[in-house]
Amino acid sequence: MSVQAASATSWQSHYRVRVEGVLERILPAWSASPTRLHEAMRYAALGPGKRVRPVLVYATGAALGVPPAVLDGPAAAVELIHAYSLVHDDLPAMDDDDLRRGRATTHRAFDEATAILAGDALQVLAFEILAEHGSLAAEPERRLEMIRLLAQASGTGGMAGGQALDLAAVGRILEREQIEEMHARKTGALIRASVMIACAAASALSQPRKQALDRYGTVVGLSFQIVDDLLDVLGDPALTGKNSGADALRGKPTYPAIAGIAAARRRAAELARSGIEALAGFGPEAGQLREFAAELVERSS
Amino acid sequence: MSVQAASATSWQSHYRVRVEGVLERILPAWSASPTRLHEAMRYAALGPGKRVRPVLVYATGAALGVPPAVLDGPAAAVELIHAYSLVHDDLPAMDDDDLRRGRATTHRAFDEATAILAGDALQVLAFEILAEHGSLAAEPERRLEMIRLLAQASGTGGMAGGQALDLAAVGRILEREQIEEMHARKTGALIRASVMIACAAASALSQPRKQALDRYGTVVGLSFQIVDDLLDVLGDPALTGKNSGADALRGKPTYPAIAGIAAARRRAAELARSGIEALAGFGPEAGQLREFAAELVERSS
Repeated sequence: MSVQAASATSWQSHYRVRVEGVLERILPAWSASPTRLHEAMRYAALGPGKRVRPVLVYATGAALGVPPAVLDGPAAAVELIHAYSLVHDDLPAMDDDDLRRGRATTHRAFDEATAILAGDALQVLAFEILAEHGSLAAEPERRLEMIRLLAQASGTGGMAGGQALDLAAVGRILEREQIEEMHARKTGALIRASVMIACAAASALSQPRKQALDRYGTVVGLSFQIVDDLLDVLGDPALTGKNSGADALRGKPTYPAIAGIAAARRRAAELARSGIEALAGFGPEAGQLREFAAELVERSS
Repeated sequence: MSVQAASATSWQSHYRVRVEGVLERILPAWSASPTRLHEAMRYAALGPGKRVRPVLVYATGAALGVPPAVLDGPAAAVELIHAYSLVHDDLPAMDDDDLRRGRATTHRAFDEATAILAGDALQVLAFEILAEHGSLAAEPERRLEMIRLLAQASGTGGMAGGQALDLAAVGRILEREQIEEMHARKTGALIRASVMIACAAASALSQPRKQALDRYGTVVGLSFQIVDDLLDVLGDPALTGKNSGADALRGKPTYPAIAGIAAARRRAAELARSGIEALAGFGPEAGQLREFAAELVERSS
């Protein structure tokens, strides 16, 4: 277990450092005009984070024999979308959060107008990266496929729609299915897209393997959000970087609140397991994806 | 003159109706979940508007022999980006506007959170449309070129950067060049992109013709914004749908405020003229573009 954990840490942190280098290069220089906007974009995208989505892009690439260099643009793009969504979700009109991973949220560190614009600009940068000439995922049709996947995961059928459902749910009692639907859009869609974007870069991927990875991305995305809900209740603020019980205080329906802590834990573990099972047709090349799913339920931040 | 005006009205309103039909089809149904978000997106994108950018896409297409059907997606995409930028610019943290074209702004008609999300979702929908399979501008490399053009016009080098400069300029005195730089990004970039996106759909466009259209889009975009500034001071609120003098009240530096009304008028006319001159190498097929530039300075809303 400790050996596995050590090796997991090493490949994951390798990918993390890699995508941070890419982000560092593609984000506009803070010294360029308008400096305050660029500073805010860098603050939001380069701040502390687990880089879960880029890690999944690279790990899926490893399972499919796609070299990391081909996936640098796509990995950065999913992280930019994630970063933008946090900036906008934290705004006073939305979740009104002052802290994110132990630091001031972007609108607190800068101001609201700058945070709105920084989010807007991070979103568009994600699409620009995927459309760029320089991308090594060279075939235009594949890059268009990635753009479609990212757009669908970000739009009203995905993240933006999930956040709208989330806001509408405050103070209401939802069924388990409604919570899973909300989670699937709000968090699940982008996690699934991280897997599918790497699939789009693979040549000659068979339909069954693609479907297996689709299934993996879907259940792992849902499991990830249930664990997030659990950490909101049970997590150590020193590790999560936010106050415990924030969701409950806001009247947000969460999986543990509806089903109970124990059932939520079981559901998260069951989903992670079914993610690993979906990879049955793969060999050791899918080892990173398996480890990722296995560790999901163990994470503490 | 009256004949020309009548014909101009007819082709422009033809394009306007056309793009509104496209938007109607591609925007998510208001009856689909999350309904409030979809309603807000439709409210923002289908409300009254001149559809200047889509009109330019189609008119450039006419100059290059690109059929309107090929440009429906691109025309809708530029309008979606424009609509999203208005929703976010009107927010309390930005320009804090309650009225837009005589109607409540989106955050007033709905709420702030919904307006932020609707803007986000309109932006992503623009990129999704350009990336879609169904697009008649079929060649993938051309669609990628359109996505790049739209992304550059929307990001920190374009609209978002221009809005940041605009916010930073409140209460300050700018040089004429600084105002033109701000305008070039905030409004000019997307107007120029509307022309260049139609160029990307044209086959075998020569470099000189492309450069001529680039020049046309650039100067017409700047002229458009100076006229906007003039209308803010001199316009009839019944026609512009907003209160006169709003920019001045906010301490926003505008072209007429710096250079004076007469000089601003001269500059707008001079830019429109140089836009028409840029089209010297074109025949009657560029008639719509010429009319568009000629009418720019005459507009009252």
